Amino acid sequence: MNDCLFCKMVRGEIQPKTVYEDERVLAFRDINPQAPTHVLVIPKEHIATINDLRPGHAALAGELYLAAREVARLEGLSESGYRTVMNCGRDAGQAVFHIHLHVLGGRQMHWPPG
Amino acid sequence: MNDCLFCKMVRGEIQPKTVYEDERVLAFRDINPQAPTHVLVIPKEHIATINDLRPGHAALAGELYLAAREVARLEGLSESGYRTVMNCGRDAGQAVFHIHLHVLGGRQMHWPPG
Repeated sequence: MNDCLFCKMVRGEIQPKTVYEDERVLAFRDINPQAPTHVLVIPKEHIATINDLRPGHAALAGELYLAAREVARLEGLSESGYRTVMNCGRDAGQAVFHIHLHVLGGRQMHWPPG
Repeated sequence: MNDCLFCKMVRGEIQPKTVYEDERVLAFRDINPQAPTHVLVIPKEHIATINDLRPGHAALAGELYLAAREVARLEGLSESGYRTVMNCGRDAGQAVFHIHLHVLGGRQMHWPPG
């Protein structure tokens, strides 16, 4: 996906502030953080929205949580806690159409979640 | 897990308002909804928090999203959009220590997510 912002990060054409990376997943800091820690975890494979997930994507989608767990450990949030959020479409405010899991922590999060 | 509220639902000892179910996942309405649609998607296997996820759980964790996608379809939210949230620990306000993916839609969601 040539024009996808996050695919450009995966290809190294744009340099995010990377927090964690493995073969299938990349995690980097949100440019407009909403909490002391605000990291986005993305699959390196381009998937536009949750609606586009297929059964063959299950393990990859789950690896986003394993990466979130690792980001939380690296950021010292495992004990204090953290919120993970994935938006789909207009009503949720999805801004980049390459799925991304927000990991937020370092402050008390409120309810409802937006 | 005898005392876990969500395990009691999985065993049928408590009857939630079920929206979707398959062999590995159960989805039911939140008793304190924060949006016109507010459904919780849980794995039938007891996993306390995101911190407790192991690599062998990746596919199961990803199936929560596939179930969320199906819940959104059933609720007529696929096009308008929906937010998914999973809390971990104190700062996120995790209330039941059996992982659950909140699926919220039917209204504009705001930012930050709590």
